[in-house]
Amino acid sequence: MKAVWLEDGKIDTRDDVPMPVAVEGEALVRVVLAGICNTDLELVKGYYPFTGIPGHEFVGRIAASPSCQEREGERVTGSINAVCHNCDMCRKGLPGHCRRRTVLGISGRNGVFAEFTVLPLENLHTVPARVPDVRAVFTEPLAAALQVTEQIEISKRERIIVAGSGKLGQLISESLHVQGFNVEAVVKYPSQRKRLEKLRVPCRAVEDLEKSSYDVVVEATGTPDGLGLSLDLVRPRGTLVLKSTYKGNASVDLSRLVVDEITLKGSRCGPFPKALELLASGKVAPENMIQEVFSLEEGGRAFEAAATPGAGKILLEMISE
Amino acid sequence: MKAVWLEDGKIDTRDDVPMPVAVEGEALVRVVLAGICNTDLELVKGYYPFTGIPGHEFVGRIAASPSCQEREGERVTGSINAVCHNCDMCRKGLPGHCRRRTVLGISGRNGVFAEFTVLPLENLHTVPARVPDVRAVFTEPLAAALQVTEQIEISKRERIIVAGSGKLGQLISESLHVQGFNVEAVVKYPSQRKRLEKLRVPCRAVEDLEKSSYDVVVEATGTPDGLGLSLDLVRPRGTLVLKSTYKGNASVDLSRLVVDEITLKGSRCGPFPKALELLASGKVAPENMIQEVFSLEEGGRAFEAAATPGAGKILLEMISE
Repeated sequence: MKAVWLEDGKIDTRDDVPMPVAVEGEALVRVVLAGICNTDLELVKGYYPFTGIPGHEFVGRIAASPSCQEREGERVTGSINAVCHNCDMCRKGLPGHCRRRTVLGISGRNGVFAEFTVLPLENLHTVPARVPDVRAVFTEPLAAALQVTEQIEISKRERIIVAGSGKLGQLISESLHVQGFNVEAVVKYPSQRKRLEKLRVPCRAVEDLEKSSYDVVVEATGTPDGLGLSLDLVRPRGTLVLKSTYKGNASVDLSRLVVDEITLKGSRCGPFPKALELLASGKVAPENMIQEVFSLEEGGRAFEAAATPGAGKILLEMISE
Repeated sequence: MKAVWLEDGKIDTRDDVPMPVAVEGEALVRVVLAGICNTDLELVKGYYPFTGIPGHEFVGRIAASPSCQEREGERVTGSINAVCHNCDMCRKGLPGHCRRRTVLGISGRNGVFAEFTVLPLENLHTVPARVPDVRAVFTEPLAAALQVTEQIEISKRERIIVAGSGKLGQLISESLHVQGFNVEAVVKYPSQRKRLEKLRVPCRAVEDLEKSSYDVVVEATGTPDGLGLSLDLVRPRGTLVLKSTYKGNASVDLSRLVVDEITLKGSRCGPFPKALELLASGKVAPENMIQEVFSLEEGGRAFEAAATPGAGKILLEMISE
């Protein structure tokens, strides 16, 4: 089959990638649309050693499933961690942290920038009919955005600011806003401000920020510099939620964390059902964040477009003949 | 009066330091014994710009108080933050994070390596008669140790490890142990192991540690390297409590925090009443951690002794003539 292939920091589209095989409990999915995420760009830079098909944001249709034929044809999106159900983390009720997990297009499992992909059936969530493909493809990042309020309790009066208004940053501020939270967004590019202001999310330029005053800061800049800014914004005893993953270390003034007794919380994948519900309600409709759709053959160019600073969402469409 | 003076990274004892003056609401305290803390050593290195008398761990007697003469003669120890009761943090019930605070021997207020010091009356806690001076001088660091369980809820089954068995590290593992928590300590020096094993705190050498398996890791190494070790030890979704303050930044793999959804919690000063209670009960009796007592004249030498790797507690005694 045709697929984007990542090897030694290089991305290209290949015609001869073997078809994946769904074993018991898994399904073969024909990918329809897939989104390029900052993590994919970081994988190319070597954030995590991965050779194979990247990509983990998608919408598709179940093409075949040996153990559940009645789901064939179903329109689905999928959560990215394939887990063992047996290790200490799984038994603790934290399957997302399974010690033996594979992660779609990130670790030990080929991803979705391909005609077909394979995931466990339990990972595949039905997409409601009223959610178009171009919206459904945002389920995974929206779920990650929603993880913020899964992990920490925030009152409606508390002041939240999202540092970073890239794709994930916008999904975070927009989803917090529609849920009635008191959220502001740090914007860098005019396109970000334009989109968020239309959604009535209050926007701030970096020069225009009140220091040490936010109860909660969500760091979603995708860069090591974002942490310094975020620490400047959070109040003593406040909470800083980290959403960025990137290659390399950040330099952190940890004494500041100690003196101000700040809580830092790493935050990764989130709840798919809640994301699909928000997308079905139309309260979050991120398809106007899409900048360009490339074909699978143009994988390399699509990655280049996604890496442009301030870029909107770049999608890959797997047009089947 | 005689006092240790810190200026431009140099420590010496001076004879001609002006006596401090207690204003309304404050008390003049004759210092009896004072302890040198890692923060004092970091202040000399320039961790925080401070010129004046360092020192914040002490026991003494109230010598004079314009607004409360009935407390004169009382044996006291004191919490270190002098606060305004008026700013947003004070009104939030977080006076330790007062925006206008001065901090004893650390920021905007002379400390206790002197014949006399001054603190607000509300900061001064009576030392119970059954607590000897050599034990009472540990009240401040023991309170800081106890702050760990003030900030996070830990069940008695959860596995805790304290990375770092310096003075503060030992107080943390020992106080957790006597409170019935399941705690282990990472030890580096034989003297640390000897003291902690006598207290029946399970000790581990760095080579002998189980990775990614502790629910709670307390980082009390006092060095930037301690964070890497601590991140190695904490399990996914676990909590890392930071107790070290030092000059400079640490290099941190923040992506690891995100992927493993780890919580980092900065932790500083703690509850004096609880510390005094534990010291009075004799359940925590840290006086056997004392390595050497210097006179005020020997301030420089005392700081040198405290800076020796693996050193026990170094005290200064203000012998009054």
